[in-house]
Amino acid sequence: MSAYQLLQQRFKRIGTLAGAQSMLHWDMATMMPSGGSGARAEQLATLEVLQHELLTAPETGDLLEQAQQEPLDHWQAANLREMLRSHRSATAVPPELVEALTKACRRCEMLWREARKNDDFAAVRPALAEVIARVRESAAARGAALGLTPYDALLEQYQPGLRAARVESLFAPLRTALPELIEGALAAQAARPTPLVPQGPFPQAAQEALARNLMERLGFPFDQGRLDTSLHPFSGGTPDDLRITTRWDEADYSSAIMGVLHETGHALYEAGLPRDWRLQPVGEARGMAVHESQSLLVEMQACRSRAFLAYLAPLLAQHFGADPAWKPENLYRLATRVERGFIRVDADEVTYPAHVLLRYELEPALLSGDLPLADLPGAWREQARALVGAVPPGDGFGCLQDIHWYDGAFGYFPTYTLGAMTAAQLYRAAVESDAAIPDALEQGDFTPLLAWMRREIHARASLLEWEELVETATGRPLDPEIYLDHLRQRYLG
Amino acid sequence: MSAYQLLQQRFKRIGTLAGAQSMLHWDMATMMPSGGSGARAEQLATLEVLQHELLTAPETGDLLEQAQQEPLDHWQAANLREMLRSHRSATAVPPELVEALTKACRRCEMLWREARKNDDFAAVRPALAEVIARVRESAAARGAALGLTPYDALLEQYQPGLRAARVESLFAPLRTALPELIEGALAAQAARPTPLVPQGPFPQAAQEALARNLMERLGFPFDQGRLDTSLHPFSGGTPDDLRITTRWDEADYSSAIMGVLHETGHALYEAGLPRDWRLQPVGEARGMAVHESQSLLVEMQACRSRAFLAYLAPLLAQHFGADPAWKPENLYRLATRVERGFIRVDADEVTYPAHVLLRYELEPALLSGDLPLADLPGAWREQARALVGAVPPGDGFGCLQDIHWYDGAFGYFPTYTLGAMTAAQLYRAAVESDAAIPDALEQGDFTPLLAWMRREIHARASLLEWEELVETATGRPLDPEIYLDHLRQRYLG
Repeated sequence: MSAYQLLQQRFKRIGTLAGAQSMLHWDMATMMPSGGSGARAEQLATLEVLQHELLTAPETGDLLEQAQQEPLDHWQAANLREMLRSHRSATAVPPELVEALTKACRRCEMLWREARKNDDFAAVRPALAEVIARVRESAAARGAALGLTPYDALLEQYQPGLRAARVESLFAPLRTALPELIEGALAAQAARPTPLVPQGPFPQAAQEALARNLMERLGFPFDQGRLDTSLHPFSGGTPDDLRITTRWDEADYSSAIMGVLHETGHALYEAGLPRDWRLQPVGEARGMAVHESQSLLVEMQACRSRAFLAYLAPLLAQHFGADPAWKPENLYRLATRVERGFIRVDADEVTYPAHVLLRYELEPALLSGDLPLADLPGAWREQARALVGAVPPGDGFGCLQDIHWYDGAFGYFPTYTLGAMTAAQLYRAAVESDAAIPDALEQGDFTPLLAWMRREIHARASLLEWEELVETATGRPLDPEIYLDHLRQRYLG
Repeated sequence: MSAYQLLQQRFKRIGTLAGAQSMLHWDMATMMPSGGSGARAEQLATLEVLQHELLTAPETGDLLEQAQQEPLDHWQAANLREMLRSHRSATAVPPELVEALTKACRRCEMLWREARKNDDFAAVRPALAEVIARVRESAAARGAALGLTPYDALLEQYQPGLRAARVESLFAPLRTALPELIEGALAAQAARPTPLVPQGPFPQAAQEALARNLMERLGFPFDQGRLDTSLHPFSGGTPDDLRITTRWDEADYSSAIMGVLHETGHALYEAGLPRDWRLQPVGEARGMAVHESQSLLVEMQACRSRAFLAYLAPLLAQHFGADPAWKPENLYRLATRVERGFIRVDADEVTYPAHVLLRYELEPALLSGDLPLADLPGAWREQARALVGAVPPGDGFGCLQDIHWYDGAFGYFPTYTLGAMTAAQLYRAAVESDAAIPDALEQGDFTPLLAWMRREIHARASLLEWEELVETATGRPLDPEIYLDHLRQRYLG
């Protein structure tokens, strides 16, 4: 067997263990009784360690050396590139540091839950300082091994190929345009009649029936996936066994339904990855920004369009009973309402990127030490005023609102907005390529859109670097102006 | 670290992987969409291989050598004994043979499903011949390594410490007594009025509510376990995350309810294993016969007693509505009905051991070759006539009814009846030790019985060999006469 073939076997085992881990994660969030948490943590940690051992083993390094001398086709070469990427990243950080970081995160995350409830940043500050210290060390180690700056090494973890300089060039136009855009959207909204709010309650069973109905329309394969309930919605499982979750609020049908559409977008990406490359690095999704683009393409681009809402209106009446709010134009106004709020996860499409910019302003400074932790709450309020136009009343609505930093996830926030930007560009290209897409959405038919997504994104998995993937699919480099155009058209038009 | 401590770490990892595997098995039977089966098979196989690699690694052998020179306390020494047992058993069979056996079983099991449906033994005979050939080889290899006859090596897999000579001495009195006992039970039954059969349907929701209610009475810890639905009821998961399943039949409440009581008995055993020895070999249940004794102690000894049925009667009325059949004495007659049937899993308490004897008559002869496979259907009918008193109309009701042989499980059947025998002896000892047990059952209070089971069986895990465990708990060696006494008292009295 060639070195490359031996690597394929080895990475198949790693991928299989990752799949097992993903199923156990799903179970933990949906099914597991509380008493199982200790045993489950042990199982997840063991599966993690085994993957890490296989990935960093000296034999893996030797085989990677040898395989580079072997003749490989296009996909195999890309697979080898991704294997090398994983191996280098995993070997870059010494195991003691990995463990110290994991421990610091676990401790900090627990304190954060209380701190957020109590609006008490001081209570979690020392633990966060410890997390930042460990993230800094591991980013430095990873950067040294990969020839990247520490912050680039963090971005690389979430979106391979992403660099801070590129984020800056993509975000700069947003930073300039957004304040005016938000202002304009609010003015345009004020000039229109206030949309009618549908009167609940919306029984969970009816919401669930509607959600499943829409998932089917979207092409979610129920013979290789499930919908369940969890505290925090997510899309998990494996490409052949997709597990998406949501939570139900009988006072507000839209949070669950839009959440399901979002997670279905993620799941469809996984389902569409090439069968021939299952369990191999090149067969995996191309990073978090691309993943988010697939969920937002479904949720934001397709499902908040006038076309789709015209299809949705009678379905809502059918599931929840008659309500004067179930008029397509009224639904569109509801789905595109803009508000300067404090909370990112509740934000609308226009203010959301402002929330991300806020975090992106502070994150590198926290890591470099330019922004002392004691100044974080103040800096947050300042940026919130400048970017979002809403100053949180307490840190629970401010710098304590997101789990990410407290769990060590630095470098992750930019992918949300890069995903939104990518989604806008992909949707435009899809419609340019197949003008029937919007008409089909009006009939609740996602087939043409999904066919395009599958062909241009899903089937390519990690064959290309992420910006190559976007350029190949859309015919041009990622362009923030397309995203801004989309927002202007929808919110100022 | 001492060699023993290093072994503890190694076996903790093995135990953790086994736990992960168990959860994924549960998911496969209860939650998994059909499309996930390929990926799941891969996950389960990988977890299996990893455990096998850890168990058979040369370092494991070296550490086991060294640890035998180290000072160990009572429990540690027993743990080392069980580690050695697993290691020897796993290293005894060459990996190629393990794989050949697995493949033969997988193929045979698939053919068996069709063959059973079609009453067509010939269709599966060549595949079964292949399974038997591979079982024979692996039993010979295991026997050679362990100093056991091949059949003893098979028994050892399911009930460590069990030998054919001992099975023979325990089964001989049954073989003598059972025909008369069955005859007598049928005669006694014929002399009594026919019991009233309760009129369904019994809605699934009501059955489920009753099942959960009874599980709570039994002491099933719902904060560390769940009840779900699967095609074949089982008890799985891990001691801190117990997963039991049942299936619901709205025409017959008793199959689901008695099934749940049975599986709860298994689960309580797991839950009661000593916390200090989690994930270590000595902390595991003491074999299949002992496991079955815990389920039958609950289902057969406790829950088919007059005392418990007096408690159950009003509960049935409460959950399913009034029915003249809900009288304690009538319920007792229903719960102790005897019938010469064809199918083991549907058999009553008296004919069940006859079904097991039948299989135990044939199994060693099949393996030795004394019974040619072509003669199996005829031999089955002959034994069924002699032992059960009912000749199956076709092989689907005869030698094709059980999955075990077709899946390579030779040496397993005896543990059912040894479990029943053990349960009878344990229950008698429990009541001798605490006379309050039957009165408590009449109040639906399992606390005194469970306390005894926990102290005498669960807490001891695999500290003792299985017959030592029975003798320690009951003050005498396992005695088939106690089991026969129980049957005579209940069915002839």
